[in-house]
Amino acid sequence: MKVLLVHAHPEPASLNGFLRDLAVETLQGGQHQVRVSDLYAMNFPAALGPADVQGPRVDATHFKAQAEQKQALAQGSFAPEIKAEQEKLRWCDHLILQFPIYWFSMPAIMKGWVDRVFTTGFAYGGGGTMWYENGGLKGRRALVSMTTGAAAPAFAADGIHGDIDRILWPIHNGIMHFCGFQVLRPEIFYGVSRIDAEARAAMIERYRRRLVGLEREQPLYFHRLADFGADHRLKPEVTPLTGFQYRG
Amino acid sequence: MKVLLVHAHPEPASLNGFLRDLAVETLQGGQHQVRVSDLYAMNFPAALGPADVQGPRVDATHFKAQAEQKQALAQGSFAPEIKAEQEKLRWCDHLILQFPIYWFSMPAIMKGWVDRVFTTGFAYGGGGTMWYENGGLKGRRALVSMTTGAAAPAFAADGIHGDIDRILWPIHNGIMHFCGFQVLRPEIFYGVSRIDAEARAAMIERYRRRLVGLEREQPLYFHRLADFGADHRLKPEVTPLTGFQYRG
Repeated sequence: MKVLLVHAHPEPASLNGFLRDLAVETLQGGQHQVRVSDLYAMNFPAALGPADVQGPRVDATHFKAQAEQKQALAQGSFAPEIKAEQEKLRWCDHLILQFPIYWFSMPAIMKGWVDRVFTTGFAYGGGGTMWYENGGLKGRRALVSMTTGAAAPAFAADGIHGDIDRILWPIHNGIMHFCGFQVLRPEIFYGVSRIDAEARAAMIERYRRRLVGLEREQPLYFHRLADFGADHRLKPEVTPLTGFQYRG
Repeated sequence: MKVLLVHAHPEPASLNGFLRDLAVETLQGGQHQVRVSDLYAMNFPAALGPADVQGPRVDATHFKAQAEQKQALAQGSFAPEIKAEQEKLRWCDHLILQFPIYWFSMPAIMKGWVDRVFTTGFAYGGGGTMWYENGGLKGRRALVSMTTGAAAPAFAADGIHGDIDRILWPIHNGIMHFCGFQVLRPEIFYGVSRIDAEARAAMIERYRRRLVGLEREQPLYFHRLADFGADHRLKPEVTPLTGFQYRG
C-alpha cells in the first residue's frame, strides 16, 4: 500500500502523536510506503480563500471558490501547500486521518486541509458525474483513527452524544465516500483521558494488529449511485440500508 | 435580544455576506442589539494550540488543552481574540451562525472559532455537570443559517447526501445543545448557485420575515439530562425521540 497519513494534534507527544508513529512504523514494517502530513508541524493554513490560488484570477474582484479552483487546477496555479497535498493524494491508495475529536468533528486545521485541498475537478465535480463511487479519488481507501474524551456508551445509538456513526456521517459519507474513497470502519479510542495504562495498551495493541491486516479489510457498504433517481433520492424500489446507510 | 452573528465566507459580497447584512439590518430595525464577528475579515486563527494562552503555562513542555484552558480562564490569560469572543458570547442571548456548507459542515475558520473559544469551564465542563441544559452558555438560543450548493431533495431522509438533520447533528447537538443553547430550526438556503432570481428573492424574504419574529420562536426539543442514566445512555423507561432526537 501507499499510505498517506494526515495528522492533526497540537502536542507532538500526545497519544495521537504516538498513534501516528505506531501507524508509520507498523505499515513500514509491512513493506508499505507511508507519507505523513503533520498539519500542526506544517502550520497548515486552514481558511479557504483567495490565497489558495496564484496568478491571474478568473475574477479578481469577486472570489468564487469553484471557478478559481477549476482554473488553478487547469493552470497548475494552486498555492504550493495545496499542490503538495494533492500530489500526495494522487500518489496514495490509502488515506488515514489521525485526530482527536473536537466538537464532534475533526480539528479545524484538518477541516481546512479538506476545505482547501479537496477542490472541484480534483476530488469531485463535473456537475454530479464525478462523485460518490465515481469521485475524483476513487480506487483509494480511507480510515478515520480518532480519540475521544467521552467513553463509548455516550456514543451508543441511545447515548447522550448520539450514535458515533451519526457523528461521523459528514466525514464518512460527505468527505470520503463523496470523493470516491472506500471507507473502512473507524478506529476509535474512547475515553482516552480517563482510562488506565492497561486499557490504553490494549487499545494500542488492537490498532497495531488491525494495521497489519489493513490491506485485507472489507470496506463499509454505502448505497450506490444507481440506487438514487435523477432527483437524488432513493428509487422507490430500493430498500434503504438500516442505520446510517453504510452499515452493510 | 442581544444577538451575536458569527459570519464566515471568503467573499464579502457573497450571498452569505448579503444574509449577514440582512440579519443585522432586520434585527436592528426591530430594536435588537447586534454584534458581528466576521471571521474572514478578522483573519481569525483557526488552529487550537499553545498560542491560545498567554503567560506561564501549566506545563510548558507538554500542551494539554483543557488544563491550559482552565488556568487561562481563571487568570484571564487567554489570547486577546479568544477573550473578545468569549465576552461577546457572555453578552449575547442569541447566536446566529451564518456560513456556506463546506464538506457537510461549517468552514474551517468557523470550526476554529468553536474549537478555540468554547473552552472548558466557559462553555462546558465540570466533569459532566456543566453540559447540555446545564451548559455554560445556557439561557441563550442559537440558529444555523446556511447556504448549500445542492438542492433540497439530496438532503432528504432518503437523499444521496443524507438527512440534513443528520448532517447538522454534530453542530446542533454537539456544539449548541451541548453548551446549553436552545436550538432553533435551521434556516437553509438550498441550491443557491443554481436558482433563479425569483427563487432567491423568495428565500431572502422568507428569512427576513423569520428574523422579525425570531424572538417568539419555540426551540427544537432534545432529550433532557434526566432521560439518561449514569452510563450516559437513555434510561430503559424513556421512549426515544424519533428521527434525530431533536424533532419533538
